[in-house]
Amino acid sequence: MIAQSAFTVEPWALHETSLELEHLAQTESLFALANGHLGLRGNLDEGEPFGIPGTYLAGFYEEKELPYAEAGYGYPEAGETVINVTNGKLLRLFVKDEPFDIRYGKLIAHERVLDLRAGVMRRTVEWASPTGRRVRVHSTRVVCFTRRAVAAIRYEVEPLDGTVPVVIQSELVANESQQSEPGDPRGATLAPSLLRSESSSARGTRGVLVHATQTSGLRVGAAMDHTIVGPERTDVTADSEVDLARVLVAADAAPGSPLCLVKFLAYGWSGERSVPALTDQVEAALASAKHADWEGLLAEQRSYLDDFWERADVQIDGDADLQQAARFALFHILQAGARGERRPIAAKGLTGPGYDGHTFWDTESFVLPVLTYTAPRAARDALGWRHRTLEAARERARLLGLRGASFPWRTIAGSECSSYWPAGTAAFHVNADIADAVVRYLAASEDEDFLHEAGSELLMETARLWRSLGHFDASGMFRIDGVTGPDEYSAIADNNVYTNLMAQRNLRAAADAAERDPSQAAQLGVDMEELGSWRRLAQTLYIPYDETLQVHPQSDGFTKHQVWDFAGTGPEQYPLLLHFPYFDLYRKQVVKQADLVLAMLMRGDAFTDEQKQRNFAYYERLTVRDSSLSACTQAVLACELGHLELAYEYLREGALLDLEDLEHNTRDGLHIAALAGTWIGAVAGMGGMRDHDGQLTFAPRLTPPLTRIAFRLLFRARKLQVEVTPEQASYTLLAGETLELSHHGESITVTAGAPLVRPIPPAPQRERPTQPQGREPGGAAPAA
Amino acid sequence: MIAQSAFTVEPWALHETSLELEHLAQTESLFALANGHLGLRGNLDEGEPFGIPGTYLAGFYEEKELPYAEAGYGYPEAGETVINVTNGKLLRLFVKDEPFDIRYGKLIAHERVLDLRAGVMRRTVEWASPTGRRVRVHSTRVVCFTRRAVAAIRYEVEPLDGTVPVVIQSELVANESQQSEPGDPRGATLAPSLLRSESSSARGTRGVLVHATQTSGLRVGAAMDHTIVGPERTDVTADSEVDLARVLVAADAAPGSPLCLVKFLAYGWSGERSVPALTDQVEAALASAKHADWEGLLAEQRSYLDDFWERADVQIDGDADLQQAARFALFHILQAGARGERRPIAAKGLTGPGYDGHTFWDTESFVLPVLTYTAPRAARDALGWRHRTLEAARERARLLGLRGASFPWRTIAGSECSSYWPAGTAAFHVNADIADAVVRYLAASEDEDFLHEAGSELLMETARLWRSLGHFDASGMFRIDGVTGPDEYSAIADNNVYTNLMAQRNLRAAADAAERDPSQAAQLGVDMEELGSWRRLAQTLYIPYDETLQVHPQSDGFTKHQVWDFAGTGPEQYPLLLHFPYFDLYRKQVVKQADLVLAMLMRGDAFTDEQKQRNFAYYERLTVRDSSLSACTQAVLACELGHLELAYEYLREGALLDLEDLEHNTRDGLHIAALAGTWIGAVAGMGGMRDHDGQLTFAPRLTPPLTRIAFRLLFRARKLQVEVTPEQASYTLLAGETLELSHHGESITVTAGAPLVRPIPPAPQRERPTQPQGREPGGAAPAA
Repeated sequence: MIAQSAFTVEPWALHETSLELEHLAQTESLFALANGHLGLRGNLDEGEPFGIPGTYLAGFYEEKELPYAEAGYGYPEAGETVINVTNGKLLRLFVKDEPFDIRYGKLIAHERVLDLRAGVMRRTVEWASPTGRRVRVHSTRVVCFTRRAVAAIRYEVEPLDGTVPVVIQSELVANESQQSEPGDPRGATLAPSLLRSESSSARGTRGVLVHATQTSGLRVGAAMDHTIVGPERTDVTADSEVDLARVLVAADAAPGSPLCLVKFLAYGWSGERSVPALTDQVEAALASAKHADWEGLLAEQRSYLDDFWERADVQIDGDADLQQAARFALFHILQAGARGERRPIAAKGLTGPGYDGHTFWDTESFVLPVLTYTAPRAARDALGWRHRTLEAARERARLLGLRGASFPWRTIAGSECSSYWPAGTAAFHVNADIADAVVRYLAASEDEDFLHEAGSELLMETARLWRSLGHFDASGMFRIDGVTGPDEYSAIADNNVYTNLMAQRNLRAAADAAERDPSQAAQLGVDMEELGSWRRLAQTLYIPYDETLQVHPQSDGFTKHQVWDFAGTGPEQYPLLLHFPYFDLYRKQVVKQADLVLAMLMRGDAFTDEQKQRNFAYYERLTVRDSSLSACTQAVLACELGHLELAYEYLREGALLDLEDLEHNTRDGLHIAALAGTWIGAVAGMGGMRDHDGQLTFAPRLTPPLTRIAFRLLFRARKLQVEVTPEQASYTLLAGETLELSHHGESITVTAGAPLVRPIPPAPQRERPTQPQGREPGGAAPAA
Repeated sequence: MIAQSAFTVEPWALHETSLELEHLAQTESLFALANGHLGLRGNLDEGEPFGIPGTYLAGFYEEKELPYAEAGYGYPEAGETVINVTNGKLLRLFVKDEPFDIRYGKLIAHERVLDLRAGVMRRTVEWASPTGRRVRVHSTRVVCFTRRAVAAIRYEVEPLDGTVPVVIQSELVANESQQSEPGDPRGATLAPSLLRSESSSARGTRGVLVHATQTSGLRVGAAMDHTIVGPERTDVTADSEVDLARVLVAADAAPGSPLCLVKFLAYGWSGERSVPALTDQVEAALASAKHADWEGLLAEQRSYLDDFWERADVQIDGDADLQQAARFALFHILQAGARGERRPIAAKGLTGPGYDGHTFWDTESFVLPVLTYTAPRAARDALGWRHRTLEAARERARLLGLRGASFPWRTIAGSECSSYWPAGTAAFHVNADIADAVVRYLAASEDEDFLHEAGSELLMETARLWRSLGHFDASGMFRIDGVTGPDEYSAIADNNVYTNLMAQRNLRAAADAAERDPSQAAQLGVDMEELGSWRRLAQTLYIPYDETLQVHPQSDGFTKHQVWDFAGTGPEQYPLLLHFPYFDLYRKQVVKQADLVLAMLMRGDAFTDEQKQRNFAYYERLTVRDSSLSACTQAVLACELGHLELAYEYLREGALLDLEDLEHNTRDGLHIAALAGTWIGAVAGMGGMRDHDGQLTFAPRLTPPLTRIAFRLLFRARKLQVEVTPEQASYTLLAGETLELSHHGESITVTAGAPLVRPIPPAPQRERPTQPQGREPGGAAPAA
C-alpha cells in the first residue's frame, strides 16, 4: 500500500512529495498519461530505476501460444498480449561524468504532480551526484488528447552550484528489458518484446524507428524531434542503431543558465501500411506537433480538458479524499477511452501490462456507462471496436455450435484469448453486457447512424446467440444452463440470474431494433418468426427463486451450497483464489464480486423492493470483494436500500482502490472499470441515477460526512446538472430542450434556465447488513 | 479397425495369419506380453518396422512439466509419464549382406500366435530377401509370471535355399527413437526417452545397461545373456556403447542347420539402489533364469497359467468370438496385474504409452473386481500400492483444504497428474472406488492382515475426506456439491448419485472397520464422535430424485438440461469430445459412459426394480458410449432388467473393443478396464453375480445364440463353479466349506461334491430401450 504520506490530498491533482522505490511500479501506473491511443507509464525520465517500463498503443499486440497439458476441442491455441513498444520517454542525463540516477548520490527533493486540469505530469527533482554536484531537473510530460499520435516532454536541467558540463541523451529504444512479478494470475504473462527492426535513422534533432512484431504481423513507428534552448555552444549530435535512435545534447549549464529541451514524440501502428508509409505518417504527426510548439500543445490540452470537466465534473463536498479520487478516476477513464477510435479499451487502459492488455466485459458494463454520459463519442468508438470484431465473434459461435455472435471473454483484436473455459468461454454474459451498452448508448445519444451501422447488428447477433444457447423446459420456461456469471468464485451453473436477466434485455432490445431498423434486419435475414421468438424467449426466461429463503439464488442451487467458512479464513488468505482451489470456491456460497447484486443494479426493474432488501442482506454476508468490480455495485444498492453509511464506506473503498493499492496489483496498471465504479458509486449511488428503458430517474441521498455532491450528464443533446445536499436535490438543464425525469418516484420536468428543487425523503431505518468476518468495507478515514 | 480376416477365431489363442503394416501398432498392443512388472509390446523381433516401440516397467516414470496458460491454486505443476525403457527385445538379423526387414524383399508367410495357455507369443516368418534368398524365422517370446524380472526369446533362423551366412545382433538399446500420433488427448504425451547412461558393458554372451531418468531420480538396469545353438564355427562377439550392449552371432546356416539362440532378459529398477546393486540384481535374476533354461521357463509359465485357468476360466458356448475375447481379456488382465507387487496397474497395463501410463479409478472399479475373484493376491497388491501412496493423498487433501486422503485422478507414483481439474481433482469418486475395492477384497478374502496393514486405514482416511467434502442442508440431508461423477460429459455438479451412493458405502465400511480394527482406529485418532458421524452421514446422504419424470437425475438438475441433438450429430462427430467443446457437453443431457447406470450396478441395493427399469430406459436414450467403460455396465443392467438381446450386444461390443479397435486407439495400448468389463459382462451380466454386503448372489440368464456359460470364482477360501444354460444354473463348490448363496432371490447352500441345480425363471418381456440415433450397440456378427 502506498503510504498516504507520499501524497497530498488536492482537489485537482495527484501530488507526490517523496519517492519510495518499493512503490515505483505503483506510481508508474498512477502517473500514467494516455489518450486512448497512446499510453506512457509514469516511468522516470531517465529510464532507471523502473518498476515496469511501459509504452502502449491501443490494439497493438503480439501473439503467443496458449499451452495446455490436456487439450480440448475449441480451446484457443494462440492468445494476444500487449507489448511494450518503442520507448520514447527516455532522457538520460549525465552530470559531468556521472549518470543521473536517483539510486546513487542523494535525492534532495522529489515531486510529481498529475495535473487533472492541465492534463500533464510535472516532475521536479533536486539531486546531488555521488561527488556532490547538485542539479535541479524540471520535466513536464503530456500525451495529447487533441493529437492521438503525439506526446511531448519538456526537460530542463539546471546546476545549482556553478557551471557543470551536462549531457542529455534523448532516445527511442525498442526491446528494452523489463520484469514482472511471477505467480499472480492477474498479472501479465510478458512475452519478451521481440520487435524486429525494420528501419532506424537519426539526423539533426530527429530520429525514427520502425519495428514489426514476429507473429501478429503488426508494424509500429516511433519518431522524435526536439527544440533545444541551451547555453551558448550547445552541441547536438544524432545517431541510430537497430533498436535505438539517439539525439545527444551537450552543454555547459550553470545556475540561471539551464539546458532545456522539448522532445516531441509521434507514434503510429498498422497491420497494413508499409515502412515508408508508416514513417511518413509519424513524421507528419511530429512536424505538425512541433509546428504547434510546446505551448500550443499545452493550450490544446487544457482546452480539451476544460471542455471535458465542464460537462463531466463530479463535485463532492465533505470528503476531500473522495473528491480527489473521483476526479482522478474520471481523468483516467478519459485517458483510457478518449481517442480509442475503434480500438479496445483494456481493463488496465494504457497504464500497464496487467491481464495481458486484454479487454473484458467490464469495459461495457462499467466504463461505457460513464463515457456514455460524459464522453459519448468515446463510448460509440468502443462499441464500434466490438462491431469491428463481429466476424470473429460469429466464427467463435460457429466453433461452439451456436448461432449469431459469441464475443470473447478476453481479447485485444477479437479472438478469444481465455485458456480456462469455465471462467472464459462459459461467461456468455459478456454478450448481453455488450448489448446493454449498445442499448444505453442509443438511448442516451439517439444516434441513429450508430444504430444502422453497428448497433442493431450487435443486438440481433447477440440475441441469436441466446436463442441457440438456451432451451425450453417441460413447463415452457426458457433456461440457460451451464454458464458462468460475473462472480468468478462460481462457474458453470444453470440459470444465473444476472445472465438470464441481461439476456432478457438483450432479446427485447434486438426485437425492438429489428422493428426500428428493418433494412438491417432484412440484411441479417431476421424474419417475423425470429423476431417473435426473441420476444417470446424474453417473456419466458426462467429466473430461479428460493421460496424457502425468499431470496434469488445467484444461480440454480446456489443457496443450497455450503457457506464458506469465513470464521476459519484468515486475512492473509485473501484474495481466496490465491489460497484455495477453484474446485472449493465454486461449490460453496462465497461471492468474489457482486453478481446477483449487480443484477439488481443493471436490471433493478426486475426486482421488488422487498426482494432487493432480502437479496442484498443475503449476499452481503457472502461477498468478499476479492474483485475490484464489487464495492461500487454494493455501494449503489446500499444507497438504494437506505444503508447510507455502508454505501459511503463502499464508495470510498472503491474510489481509493488504486490510490491505496488495495488489491496489491496496481503496479500492473490501474483498474479502469473500478475507477469507473467511483463515478457509478457517486452518480448511481448517492445520486440514485438509473436509466432503465432509456428513462433517466434519480433517487438521491447523502450521508455525513458528505454535505453536497453535484454532477453533470449529457443526455439526448441536453446537458443536465444534478446537485444533491442532505435535504434536497436540484435539477438544472444547462442546455437543450425540456426533459422528463423522476425524483424519488415523482415525475418532474426540467426546462433550461429553471432549476427544479425537490426535498429528499428521509431514508428508511434499516438494520445494517453484515459482511463476512474481516471483509467489512475498509478504506482510510476521510481526510476532510 | 483390424480386418477380421487377419485373425482366426480360436478358443485359446489370438492368431494372426497375415501382417498389415498399417495396423502394426494395434497388433503390438494385442500381442504384448507382460507380468504386471515388466511389459514388452509385440514389436517385431528385428525392431523395424514398428508402430510404437515399447518396454515398460510398472511404476517407472519420468516427470514432466504441466503447462498452464492461466495457472490456478492447487494445479499440479509436474506430471508423471511412463517411458519406454531399455529395449531388450531387439534381435537384428542379417542374411548374407542384407538386413532382414519385411518392408523390403518379399514376405512369403507371416504368423503370430498369442498362446493363452502357454503364455507365450510365437511367430513364424518366411521371407525372401530383395536378392531372392529365402529364410524362415521362428521366434517364441515369454515374459515370465514366475519371475517378475525375467523375459526370454528363442530365435531361430533357417535358410531355405542352401547355405547362407547369417548374423544375429542381439541388443539392449536405450533411448530408441519413437513416434506417436499427435492431437488425440487420449494418447500419450511422449517425452523423448531421455535416459542418462550410468553403466554399460558387454562380454561373452552377456550385456548390461544401467540408465537413470533425468528428473524423477529412478534407475533402471537391463541385462541379457544367451545360449546359442548354431552350425559349426559360430562366432560370438560382444561390444557396448553408452546406450547399447550387443552380442553378435555369426554363422553359416543351411536348410536343416538353423542358427538358434535363446536370449534371456532381466530388468530391475529402483529409486534407491546404487548402480552396482542394481547391476548385481539383474545379473542374478538373469543367471537364475539361464539356470532354469528355456524349457524350464516355459514349463513354469505353463504351470502358472494352468493354475490360473483352472480357477478363473470363463467358458462361453454359442459365440466363438466371445469365448476367444473372454480368455484374451482374462489373460491380459492377469498380465497387467499378476506381479505388480505394490506398483500401479495402469489403464493400459504394460501394453502401451496411452494416457501417459497413468492409473485411474477404473483399476479399482473394473480390474480389481476381476482380480479379487480370480487372482486375489494381485488385487491385494494393487490396493497395497494405493496404501503406499497414502501420504501423498493426505498431502493432496491438505492442499485442497480437506481432511483424510484425496487420491489422485491420474497418477503413477501417487501425485495428482491431472491438469484439468473439472475432470480430475473434482472426480472425488475415485476415493470411494478405492474404498469399494477394499471392501470387496476384504469380503472375498477375509484377509485380516490386509485389513490391519492397509485396508482399514484406506477406509477411514477416505471416510474423513467425505465428511469434509459434504455438508448438511437445511433439511438435515448430507450433500456433496460441485463434484464430477464417472460420466466425463458432465462435470462439477451437485449430488452426483453415483458419488453419493459410493461415499455412503465408504462411510459405512469405515465405521465397520473402525469397530473391527480398534487399534488402527485409535492410531488414526478416530473417536466415537467420528465413528458415529460416519454412520450418520451415511444415513442422511442426499440422493436426488426427479419426481416428475420418476427417475434419478445423474446429478442435481441433470434431467432439466437440454437433451443433446442426437439427430443432428453425424457418425463422424463421435467421439463427441473431439468435435464439441466441454462447455456444450457438460450442460446438456448426453452421457459418455454409464454413471447413474453404473451406480445401479455398484449400488444395486439402493434402487428398487421399478427405479432401475425407468432409470435404465431413460439413460439408454442419452448414453453414447464414447468411453470404453460403458458397454459392459450397460450389459449387466440390461441382463438384470431382462433386456437379454441388448445385453448380449453390449457384451460383444465391450469384448471386441480392442480386438476390433472400436475406439481407434488400441495402438496406444489395450483398455485393461474394458477387458475386465468382458468378465464383468459375462459373470455379473449373464451370470447375474452381485456381491453387495459381502454376500454372493446370482440371477443368471442366457440368451441365444449363447447356449452355456461357466465360470469359476475364489471366495473365502472356496472355489466355486457356476454353469448356466438357458434353462438352469448349477452351482458347484469345487473346494472349501459350505457356502450360502442366492439364486434369483432364493437362498441356497452349496456343499463340496454336491452340485446344486436350479431352474432359471423366464425373463420378463419388456420393450427394448432405445439408444441415441446411430449409437445402438455394434460389434460384428457372431462367428459361431
